[in-house]
Amino acid sequence: MDCVRLDPSDNVVTATRSLAANTAIESVQTSGLIPSGHKIATASINQGEAVRKYAQVIGFASQDIASGEHVHTHNVAFRATDADYEFATDLRPVTAVPEHERDTFMGFRRDNGSVGTRNYIAIVTSVNCSATAARMIADHFTPDVLADYPNVDGVAAFVHGTGCGMAGDGDGFEALQRVMWGYARHPNHAGVLMVGLGCEMNQIDWLLDAWGLKQGPLFQTMNIQNVAGLRRTVELGIEKVAAMLPLANQAKRTACPVSELKVALQCGGSDAWSGITANPALGYACDLLVAQGGTGVLAETPEVYGAEHLLTRRAIDRAVGDKLIALIRWWEDYTARNRGSMDNNPSPGNKKGGLTTILEKSLGAVAKGGTTPLTGVYRYAEQVTARGFTFMDSPGYDPASVTGQIAGGCNLVCFTTGRGSAFGSKPSPTIKVATNTEMAVRMSEDMDVDAGTILSSGVSVAEKGREIYDLFLRVASGEASKSEAQGLGDYEFVPWQIGAVM
Amino acid sequence: MDCVRLDPSDNVVTATRSLAANTAIESVQTSGLIPSGHKIATASINQGEAVRKYAQVIGFASQDIASGEHVHTHNVAFRATDADYEFATDLRPVTAVPEHERDTFMGFRRDNGSVGTRNYIAIVTSVNCSATAARMIADHFTPDVLADYPNVDGVAAFVHGTGCGMAGDGDGFEALQRVMWGYARHPNHAGVLMVGLGCEMNQIDWLLDAWGLKQGPLFQTMNIQNVAGLRRTVELGIEKVAAMLPLANQAKRTACPVSELKVALQCGGSDAWSGITANPALGYACDLLVAQGGTGVLAETPEVYGAEHLLTRRAIDRAVGDKLIALIRWWEDYTARNRGSMDNNPSPGNKKGGLTTILEKSLGAVAKGGTTPLTGVYRYAEQVTARGFTFMDSPGYDPASVTGQIAGGCNLVCFTTGRGSAFGSKPSPTIKVATNTEMAVRMSEDMDVDAGTILSSGVSVAEKGREIYDLFLRVASGEASKSEAQGLGDYEFVPWQIGAVM
Ligand SMILES: [Ca+2]
Ligand SMILES: [Ca+2]
Ligand SMILES: [Ca+2]
Ligand SMILES: [Ca+2]
Ligand SMILES: [Ca+2]
Repeated sequence: MDCVRLDPSDNVVTATRSLAANTAIESVQTSGLIPSGHKIATASINQGEAVRKYAQVIGFASQDIASGEHVHTHNVAFRATDADYEFATDLRPVTAVPEHERDTFMGFRRDNGSVGTRNYIAIVTSVNCSATAARMIADHFTPDVLADYPNVDGVAAFVHGTGCGMAGDGDGFEALQRVMWGYARHPNHAGVLMVGLGCEMNQIDWLLDAWGLKQGPLFQTMNIQNVAGLRRTVELGIEKVAAMLPLANQAKRTACPVSELKVALQCGGSDAWSGITANPALGYACDLLVAQGGTGVLAETPEVYGAEHLLTRRAIDRAVGDKLIALIRWWEDYTARNRGSMDNNPSPGNKKGGLTTILEKSLGAVAKGGTTPLTGVYRYAEQVTARGFTFMDSPGYDPASVTGQIAGGCNLVCFTTGRGSAFGSKPSPTIKVATNTEMAVRMSEDMDVDAGTILSSGVSVAEKGREIYDLFLRVASGEASKSEAQGLGDYEFVPWQIGAVM
Repeated sequence: MDCVRLDPSDNVVTATRSLAANTAIESVQTSGLIPSGHKIATASINQGEAVRKYAQVIGFASQDIASGEHVHTHNVAFRATDADYEFATDLRPVTAVPEHERDTFMGFRRDNGSVGTRNYIAIVTSVNCSATAARMIADHFTPDVLADYPNVDGVAAFVHGTGCGMAGDGDGFEALQRVMWGYARHPNHAGVLMVGLGCEMNQIDWLLDAWGLKQGPLFQTMNIQNVAGLRRTVELGIEKVAAMLPLANQAKRTACPVSELKVALQCGGSDAWSGITANPALGYACDLLVAQGGTGVLAETPEVYGAEHLLTRRAIDRAVGDKLIALIRWWEDYTARNRGSMDNNPSPGNKKGGLTTILEKSLGAVAKGGTTPLTGVYRYAEQVTARGFTFMDSPGYDPASVTGQIAGGCNLVCFTTGRGSAFGSKPSPTIKVATNTEMAVRMSEDMDVDAGTILSSGVSVAEKGREIYDLFLRVASGEASKSEAQGLGDYEFVPWQIGAVM
């Protein structure tokens, strides 16, 4: 297959390999060399007419384009989205699977009704100053020590570089406290020990007060300064975790409906194929999940920039759409204040790979979210309470984005990658989907799914999407994803640091 | 001793315990309750007259103050420093110890002439995406594996949360590349392995190009994407480090002059005593070091804010002073852009502890730098090339500040703390100095020096400073500091993240 067509109404297709001049493509002939991943006009497009891909306008011809011609920045112009957003005008009906016919997975049902896919004891730190203490406590619980507790997946330390030298209010502080709270009450955690220094800005006690958390056998807090030093903190922390283990080990997997799955949709190290193979396949899996009453959480606000008007049309109501617009405005201000810009996309590398406009790039990223209505928009690390397809504010940067998604309650992560990422996460495992077969083969020990077969073997997006969905259920039920089997996830906890470090 | 006097010319002294009314203090009697750490007028101060502490003006009486009265925010006003900075007007001569009489320590002399106090192999990461790979490589080198290499102090992984999702130029990017370069060429590293993912913004190759670094037996780089996955990266990384060990083990300690010591001066978790006990004692040690031709590196720009005019007077020339003023202006802009302020000091907690004005607070922090001329001012993580007392731009936040100081070449860290910090660092060990005896006793396993004895036992600042200086030489020669003996330093590498995370 020399090219891929994403929608019957498109007037461009994408070359799947480098094509010489005069190659036959659908009903046209290429009029010059077309690099792999670049677009070819399948009809003549007059100056000013729309260029369509994904059944969407990705730009306008800046000169007449003949059929068979290379379509790229030299003959396509981008016009900024006008501010007249539409709301709820593109709500495609979801054919919901009746409750009694729903798929199930084997999960850990918690007392508060939430469902975990794993059963960890977490050591959550408030500040970098307690990082070593937390690691030393967790390091005590080797596989040998844990052998008597087969239902416990491990003792995980969540350690980071922030928590002090920051403002004690505002976006950055609130985001960090939401992350801590989200990990403290995550359904994949049977027990939680919070460890602080004592004098940090990000006070554990404030958090407890703000969220009404109470200490108990499976939720404990401690500060190094109160305990009087590192060694005693580590000793006492080990005692506290050891006391949690028999209780945590009582948790058992039971059949739970897929509506209890909350899947983080993520991409990193994208390439020209991300928006054509892996992302649409993940989108299809997300549609299947939503039909079952489950939840998909798209994130990475800078990567939907320019396509937000498509998401507002999918918003179930104006309030949900307005939240998204507010996030976009916040980001414009945030990057401007930090002397950056939201308009530096597509990057030179993206363009070289064949992406012509920011809208085309964002459409490829948004494809991870499938086609169902947008039911909720959340701040970074906020608890995701809506079912269905949702959006969470976050940077595109993988570890910071996934940390927010997990804090929001995601109990599974699905991550598409083109360049090849070695990402993994705790307490929610990450499934990795390769966008191209070359990388899937080369990094076969890291990739769970090869979506490159959509191009290399003619597998349909629907087939690949079903494969991904089926893997959701198996991994949610306890099968180790590849990143999980390799032991990743201990060093990828990165709360988004927003404000000045002082 | 009920109070402490910092200079004969001061018109206030500081209560070392809570004093009832009518307590005799020097030649006066307290006229009301004086909380511990708060100031008492030892002479009458008329409205508008200067309040003097540290032989400096810390504010002006906002009403007439009788001798024996409590001096604090209710009767002291602060006038902002006027912008007429003076340069090189307060250069106190240093009585240099002749070269042949200089103290020595046992250090690792490197081929380029620099001197290490430790002999590590470092695994430096460009991005969070290679964090687990780096940790897995380092974790292979257990004490058993290293037993054959007694001259090697360990294999240390420097792992962090940034490196992508950031602008590819500007302050934040440049700071991160300086950190990486500083760790790559640090004299405490016998060998360095750099590990990246491949597609990150912070490219290892750009770094090598920019600084002219060449791969060799003791300097290697690798990317997960090129090596084709996590497992093979870890295997190959272990091979590369294993090949470095016999070479690194050839390094031997030899007698080196103290002029090769570069000491990071740091404070964290300060209290009302920091500026009275530990900081002046460390300043005295710094003066001894400078007399020997060595280097002290003060940092934490937000904590010298308000006292920068005293440092410009100590600057050896206008150019050095102007650099400091430029940093102050940069910080005013940085915090304003991030909706913070440089003027939120002293904090409510500081005021409760007895600190009345920002100048009083900053004078206490600057006391760590002793009294000698300011010979150089550096950007964050920039190589410190001047000898003597120097300043490096950094946040006050301990791990970010020390990371910059170590990147700048500091081969020893001295850290004063009042509340009690469990900080430790690699590859340069941290000595911790307690500001008060209560905490020094309570956290005795973490504190190397109790400077609280200046208050509790009448030890002089000079005696305590000499004790700290002597400890510099012992720890530089290989004696483990308390934080080092406890194994700290693997999780405290925190490059200052300046810009937006995108
Ligand atoms: Ca992405
Ligand atoms: Ca991402
Ligand atoms: Ca050794
Ligand atoms: Ca400080
Ligand atoms: Ca500090």
